Amino acid sequence: MKGNLLYGQSGGPTTVINATAYGVIKAAFASEEIEEVYAMRHGIMGALNDDLIHVNKLSEEQIELLPKTPGAAFGSVRYKIANAKEDETDYVRLLYIFKKYNIRYFLYNGGNDSMDTCYKISEYMRKVDYDIKFVGLPKTIDNDLPFTDHTPGFGSAAKYIANTIMEIHYDMIAYPKGKITIVEIMGRHAGWLTASSAIASLSGYGPDLIYLPEIPFDIDQFKQDVQRVYEEKEQCLVAVSEGIMNKDGDFISSSSALKDAFGHFQLGGVAPKLANIIDSEMKYKARSIELSTIQRSAAHLQSLTDVTEAIEVGKRGVAVALDGESDVMITMKRKDQKDYEIEYTSHPLKDVANVERVVPKHMINKEQNGMTQEFFDYVLPLIQGEYPSGFKGGIQQFSTILKNS
Amino acid sequence: MKGNLLYGQSGGPTTVINATAYGVIKAAFASEEIEEVYAMRHGIMGALNDDLIHVNKLSEEQIELLPKTPGAAFGSVRYKIANAKEDETDYVRLLYIFKKYNIRYFLYNGGNDSMDTCYKISEYMRKVDYDIKFVGLPKTIDNDLPFTDHTPGFGSAAKYIANTIMEIHYDMIAYPKGKITIVEIMGRHAGWLTASSAIASLSGYGPDLIYLPEIPFDIDQFKQDVQRVYEEKEQCLVAVSEGIMNKDGDFISSSSALKDAFGHFQLGGVAPKLANIIDSEMKYKARSIELSTIQRSAAHLQSLTDVTEAIEVGKRGVAVALDGESDVMITMKRKDQKDYEIEYTSHPLKDVANVERVVPKHMINKEQNGMTQEFFDYVLPLIQGEYPSGFKGGIQQFSTILKNS
Repeated sequence: MKGNLLYGQSGGPTTVINATAYGVIKAAFASEEIEEVYAMRHGIMGALNDDLIHVNKLSEEQIELLPKTPGAAFGSVRYKIANAKEDETDYVRLLYIFKKYNIRYFLYNGGNDSMDTCYKISEYMRKVDYDIKFVGLPKTIDNDLPFTDHTPGFGSAAKYIANTIMEIHYDMIAYPKGKITIVEIMGRHAGWLTASSAIASLSGYGPDLIYLPEIPFDIDQFKQDVQRVYEEKEQCLVAVSEGIMNKDGDFISSSSALKDAFGHFQLGGVAPKLANIIDSEMKYKARSIELSTIQRSAAHLQSLTDVTEAIEVGKRGVAVALDGESDVMITMKRKDQKDYEIEYTSHPLKDVANVERVVPKHMINKEQNGMTQEFFDYVLPLIQGEYPSGFKGGIQQFSTILKNS
Repeated sequence: MKGNLLYGQSGGPTTVINATAYGVIKAAFASEEIEEVYAMRHGIMGALNDDLIHVNKLSEEQIELLPKTPGAAFGSVRYKIANAKEDETDYVRLLYIFKKYNIRYFLYNGGNDSMDTCYKISEYMRKVDYDIKFVGLPKTIDNDLPFTDHTPGFGSAAKYIANTIMEIHYDMIAYPKGKITIVEIMGRHAGWLTASSAIASLSGYGPDLIYLPEIPFDIDQFKQDVQRVYEEKEQCLVAVSEGIMNKDGDFISSSSALKDAFGHFQLGGVAPKLANIIDSEMKYKARSIELSTIQRSAAHLQSLTDVTEAIEVGKRGVAVALDGESDVMITMKRKDQKDYEIEYTSHPLKDVANVERVVPKHMINKEQNGMTQEFFDYVLPLIQGEYPSGFKGGIQQFSTILKNS
């Protein structure tokens, strides 16, 4: 079907979401069906505001730098679209925009919430009989999307976390008597990123203890664990997920909890809280480190595997839309565990929306404070290879779309 | 003079202190005068405890990986040696150790305090007529040692900070309405590292406001600055030194201040404090990010210039000692500003100890919240080139001396 393509980014940035954008753009440019490529500025908000970036008019440099650019080069958004049965306003507006720009392919790049948005819009357009293909492109450092072996963005974040934990560990042991160092890692309900700190252990400089949100956090057990490690080593490195909860399901960080537009808690501050407990109740010196937004934006340390797959996901998104598929998310299937190889497939969007995939029990050790070999087998292929960063004069070069177009 | 060399590391780790160790070891191995090379485990404590690492017995891999290894591969320490006039205990012990191992060359790698330690020991050995050469090797991410153009360790930390600030900035602008993001950077009294965040501006993604410890911090001016930027851009990125003080000389973070063995305050926590003020008093959403120990241990993002110079500083240290010089610190002189070139010189230790070199006024803009061209001219040569990280299977390879020897 001849027509134009509209691409958008949504949710928390990753270092490879722009690599997926690159894949989409390259595939769309190569297609004879797709005439013009547009991108929403700040996701669905850009469409609602008639604020589209005409991708065909971007410079070659702006496009070629995309795979090395973190954040969301076209702008992201957290906007919860209303249920069409209750309020059609946004949908009517989108239909107008789709017609105005003759949009026939809609590719939305995001996490669970974005897949939900995509599916809702698709349902409406089907109802009003507007001919358009909807394809979801997975993206999240949290690795919590279902029906896919993993998500683009996770591998690079995992690689950054593993290498940074090694560095923090090596720095910590410089002194004869170290502190208790508690590193807080992103992951609201899924502990994939916190688990990835375990990779550092392969170098000998990993965390001594790891606490995932999948396991109810027991403060007394935590204190016992820390005491045992400190008595043996005179120092202790702890990796903890921002989303750990007690057995009643209350976030450990909840005193400062705020909800975002989707009703999710905005977390952070677990590590300082635990450090304070160790300091005041156990009388050990403690230091807290939050990896903060750096863990999802460290473009200078991307996994080559991750970038390559992210580009491919974008290309496959265009391909399946051109093949006439709609209402699917591109997924990745691991064909073979021994020789890592990915098969790109797709899965109905309506199954994906708002389902979270967490770390399975068999990847967590029996003490519930570390990872098993199954986890290493799963995660290691995803961090392989270093994607070359675009340094010039000592600093990276990023695509300037958001600022200049 | 035939004899053995004793090398030690002291003070806060950097990503290139082990590169200097590498230079020392290579030059010592190449010398006919120096028979054996020893390193103190955890600096001067290792000497006092007769806990020396016999460097000649390390594996080739343990030595060759040193320039890529962060932290302090032989162990560091913060130990204030007594004044010999008051308490000779440590000095008597050191004389015994020096004689036991026939130490004739003593190379100590550290910052201001380490130079002071080195000079005190030298004075004592001269008094008791023990023939030994003392050479200080500069090292500090803070760049606050006098009589040298800059210090090894600063360039890599500056490079990490500049690139990380770019990434944080690009991540921040992903959303249409950003937060006030406050990034806290190390530097107790000297703002060199915080100033280096300005390098990110060359990419278009730098901090909007920079506050150095050299300038008395005025909270009302800060709030005005933030308000002005936010009204224009709907977001604001602030880089702030951990050591900012008000006009009365009190640390902004002082409520949680603790002193270390040298009487220095242990800082941290300025950014959360300022974020809290913005949140509660100005009603803007604010986020704080502390670069923490990662900024001094990010071995995966070393400046090639810095690593090269750090190795050379180690080699020169051995060379001047062999030439018969003593009681000096190796220094670097910038021969020419246009074509950056360094001449290695030396300066008497007794002038260096406990003097701090801060950012000069002409490098700070007149609004006192940013840097001038003079600063860029100074700093840019120091971050040039990327030293190749030793990735294997997705993670770095570090020298294992501390753990295994």
